[in-house]
Amino acid sequence: MSNLLSELRERRPLVHCMTNIVVANFQANGLLALGASPVMADAREEVEEMAAAASCTVLNIGTLHRESLEAMEMAGKAANGAGNPVVLDPVGAGATRFRRDAVSRLLGSVNITLIRGNTGELAALAGVDWKASGVDAGDGEMDVETVAAQVARNYDCLVAVTGATDVLTDGKRTMRISGGHPVMSRITGSGCLLSAVCGAFLAAGKGDPFHSVAAALAFYKAAGKRAAEVSSLPGSFLPAFMDQLALIGDRDFTVPESAKEVRA
Amino acid sequence: MSNLLSELRERRPLVHCMTNIVVANFQANGLLALGASPVMADAREEVEEMAAAASCTVLNIGTLHRESLEAMEMAGKAANGAGNPVVLDPVGAGATRFRRDAVSRLLGSVNITLIRGNTGELAALAGVDWKASGVDAGDGEMDVETVAAQVARNYDCLVAVTGATDVLTDGKRTMRISGGHPVMSRITGSGCLLSAVCGAFLAAGKGDPFHSVAAALAFYKAAGKRAAEVSSLPGSFLPAFMDQLALIGDRDFTVPESAKEVRA
Amino acid sequence: MSNLLSELRERRPLVHCMTNIVVANFQANGLLALGASPVMADAREEVEEMAAAASCTVLNIGTLHRESLEAMEMAGKAANGAGNPVVLDPVGAGATRFRRDAVSRLLGSVNITLIRGNTGELAALAGVDWKASGVDAGDGEMDVETVAAQVARNYDCLVAVTGATDVLTDGKRTMRISGGHPVMSRITGSGCLLSAVCGAFLAAGKGDPFHSVAAALAFYKAAGKRAAEVSSLPGSFLPAFMDQLALIGDRDFTVPESAKEVRA
Repeated sequence: MSNLLSELRERRPLVHCMTNIVVANFQANGLLALGASPVMADAREEVEEMAAAASCTVLNIGTLHRESLEAMEMAGKAANGAGNPVVLDPVGAGATRFRRDAVSRLLGSVNITLIRGNTGELAALAGVDWKASGVDAGDGEMDVETVAAQVARNYDCLVAVTGATDVLTDGKRTMRISGGHPVMSRITGSGCLLSAVCGAFLAAGKGDPFHSVAAALAFYKAAGKRAAEVSSLPGSFLPAFMDQLALIGDRDFTVPESAKEVRA
Repeated sequence: MSNLLSELRERRPLVHCMTNIVVANFQANGLLALGASPVMADAREEVEEMAAAASCTVLNIGTLHRESLEAMEMAGKAANGAGNPVVLDPVGAGATRFRRDAVSRLLGSVNITLIRGNTGELAALAGVDWKASGVDAGDGEMDVETVAAQVARNYDCLVAVTGATDVLTDGKRTMRISGGHPVMSRITGSGCLLSAVCGAFLAAGKGDPFHSVAAALAFYKAAGKRAAEVSSLPGSFLPAFMDQLALIGDRDFTVPESAKEVRA
Repeated sequence: MSNLLSELRERRPLVHCMTNIVVANFQANGLLALGASPVMADAREEVEEMAAAASCTVLNIGTLHRESLEAMEMAGKAANGAGNPVVLDPVGAGATRFRRDAVSRLLGSVNITLIRGNTGELAALAGVDWKASGVDAGDGEMDVETVAAQVARNYDCLVAVTGATDVLTDGKRTMRISGGHPVMSRITGSGCLLSAVCGAFLAAGKGDPFHSVAAALAFYKAAGKRAAEVSSLPGSFLPAFMDQLALIGDRDFTVPESAKEVRA
């Protein structure tokens, strides 16, 4: 058993989210429930200062504008300068050229610690042919583990592809994390909040980023599963899920111990 | 009994919302609960591509800016070009000159399929004297059916004026849909979400727009009524309403069969 | 017993919020539950008209941009011109230079009726050394009553410093209001919504601003306490809190009668 969650709650890391108008409230409430401290800021005038003062910065392109993209680049570099982890959530990366270009730009100018997305977003990053639909995962054929590992090696970062089963990789090894409940995909921002939760865990467990993200994924799936026992309808699932983010302790979830090596 | 709702859930239409910061989360969660796929995007750099890829575009001026108005015009034209329905929600149209002008501009440059608003917004569109208050319906004297039909003929579109009783018209015939519960007006964005729900139904039932919107209105009132049986207090009504958006099936609501002809 | 809450619900004041993307939905729902009418608008093209038409304007710098700061200044002046109360919520004032400068600019150009913030934000306004963390209250040593009274005299306004115990002052007298529940700090925007609730009470009770804010603070603490009896977990507390904002009447909370004089 890891003590990472208890340590997170004791340290209460400040998670700087540059996020979209759809999930800002949900993300802030989820981070508070977990025991982290959220701050949302995306004005160019302050993002560098905020990113440097925070423990982690999360870049989410869900409702991106030209101005916020520029601010994300500034914040990401400032977080890099401060030695803070940076999480990139490439929401709907395959949906438009603007989003694809934004992701390229951020990956080219900022050292990203973790990319967290769904299979459709992974396909967009890897240039794999895919039938995406807006910000949904979409459909297509792809060996997720192999492609994720390639992307991880390309950008020298962790990649978490989340869905019914999550895949986590650093390009050399991969891990699968299962659990959760299908209703998690019926509430908006469940992926966006997970990116921020990964950020909080990364801030709390800087020594071992792979393990920290694995713990975040396992924690989140456990919270979803328990909340779905209260209700599997989206409306009443949501407050139950928030409750579980606050309730669950280190003993209530298991981080897989062994990762699989990636064949070259 | 219509199968429109089942068909909607099977097709899972992508509903492109250009919306306000107050209701973005509620609208996305409501569309997900219903079984549609929401995507929010309002950057000029991507709205044309998003609108063309979506099944429907919903324009909501709730927290409008000059830039987003321009983007709405671009998106509306792109949706028109792709043959997709466009819903206009003229939030608080009577509240400021900026909003009145924005609505005029959008109605002048985009072929709108449906205008969905409250009585105060209808009055603003029709130039009827009205005591509006912010984004509320407000007070005044007006024959809603007659004025709505005039607006529908003026812009060659459907008009839905929603409230305690909804009025739907295409300028030639009108239909009234009752049901629901007063608590629906105690949660923010119930009208905004309804506009998006109409968009999803329009996307699913392109062959008969009048019937599709009538079904959307009847579905929504049924969901509100059932949720209010769980709680008629605004806080606990909200998750119950989301649950009902997911639970209700084609059998659980009735679309009025006959519309009344408008006298010339 | 005061009738202020009943009067508020009868008058249904229009509260113009210029607010952040995190709490916009929560603030609107909270004002609706209370019985006020929220309107969110922050485009330069319309804020003066909206502020003049509203009963109160609330300026919240939670996710401030250069453009919205300019619009807040315009709106604040228009509200002043119309004789309407203006509430300033200096969210995270100590977190960045941009926020400190924004607060100075607003306090320098707009007659503020009430500043509502946490201890960290008060420290930033007063130039007291403080260990702030993002938008949290943070830690430090300060005689809150004395510093708040100084700030109130400096800007000739009311100051409410809220937390486990609230302090309200006009610079000459101070009042403490206790109650509530710790879970209130586990949901995002509980302070932001309180600022808007104070605005609604100020609009309803213009004759005695000090008493009106005291009533707002006592009302809010009572709602929090009652909701926490339903659940003290953040997810299920939230809808219960909204319910209480709608349920509580004038008889259900007590406004402290006597204020303490501030020693010169």
